[in-house]
Amino acid sequence: MESLKNRIRREARVLPGNIVKVDGFLNHQVDARFLGELADAFGEVFDVSRVTKILTAEASGIPLAAVCSYKYGVPMVFAKKAKSDNIEGGLYRSEVFSYTYQKKVTLLVSRDWITPEDRVLIVDDFLARGEAMRGLLDIIKQSGAQLEGIGVAVEKGFQHGGDRLRQEGYPLKSLAIIERADENGFVFREE
Amino acid sequence: MESLKNRIRREARVLPGNIVKVDGFLNHQVDARFLGELADAFGEVFDVSRVTKILTAEASGIPLAAVCSYKYGVPMVFAKKAKSDNIEGGLYRSEVFSYTYQKKVTLLVSRDWITPEDRVLIVDDFLARGEAMRGLLDIIKQSGAQLEGIGVAVEKGFQHGGDRLRQEGYPLKSLAIIERADENGFVFREE
Repeated sequence: MESLKNRIRREARVLPGNIVKVDGFLNHQVDARFLGELADAFGEVFDVSRVTKILTAEASGIPLAAVCSYKYGVPMVFAKKAKSDNIEGGLYRSEVFSYTYQKKVTLLVSRDWITPEDRVLIVDDFLARGEAMRGLLDIIKQSGAQLEGIGVAVEKGFQHGGDRLRQEGYPLKSLAIIERADENGFVFREE
Repeated sequence: MESLKNRIRREARVLPGNIVKVDGFLNHQVDARFLGELADAFGEVFDVSRVTKILTAEASGIPLAAVCSYKYGVPMVFAKKAKSDNIEGGLYRSEVFSYTYQKKVTLLVSRDWITPEDRVLIVDDFLARGEAMRGLLDIIKQSGAQLEGIGVAVEKGFQHGGDRLRQEGYPLKSLAIIERADENGFVFREE
């Protein structure tokens, strides 16, 4: 998606440890109108009329999933990352390793909101090693729901989480795949 | 807002400890189209054409703030609740006590995204004792930005955080104020 690549070229920064910061429009400050364009781009790849539920992980996936939910007119569910008093029993749980926080986190989704009848589109802002994505896929598997697709805004291609998912046959679409990010700027994978 | 009160009557549950669960449409599963109606209701109270930035706290405030951002066409910023490697220096910080998690949490916002030129609308899904809201107000004060208003979906009136803010003169609008919640259902404050 050319407009997303341009926005990354203009606004993203690279920090030590291969961290790509797009916190001016995607995951700290959020330009929701622009996220609407990303939601439309997913709609060109996936048949969103089949989707009954959008799933993402807190916190940075929520804005994109909320805008997709608004545009497609189906509910979204966000996996929570810690046990709070507001979630009692009846949970799908999946433990994943967070490289951002350098610790294990447990993704939690209430069994009330994903059921075997659901056809789920996973949406997330970032895909790197794919740990969080594995947790969301695990939760869909536990639920018996059907996976309709995986829509990602920015994939860090050089960390290969997306490549492994594609090799395994998952219907993954990333709107911008960064192959290299350094002081010379960004190189994107050709499609 | 009658449609919100009706939805609370129909779908919310009350858990021990005065916890009101609206996780079927507001803060775990999210009906973003309905949040669009809440965003419109805020637009009837506040002059959103003056607003340059929407501010909320992760995680459960994000869907509503994202939909407001989409509808009003201005960016939203969400305060993060833990120091991650993705946020380096240059932060506003405010320490608040979370009753949900029964511990202190630090709200963090990058100085890049709230500046003295901003006119900020705070948006949140819930207001109870008002601790998180105090943190957001503190961050706006640190930034030198101007507060345009505080829009809350559901206020727990019996915990009086909202009453204290109104007494202090803050421009707070809650779309549904719960005065009592128990096995007999919900009683809302008359407006």
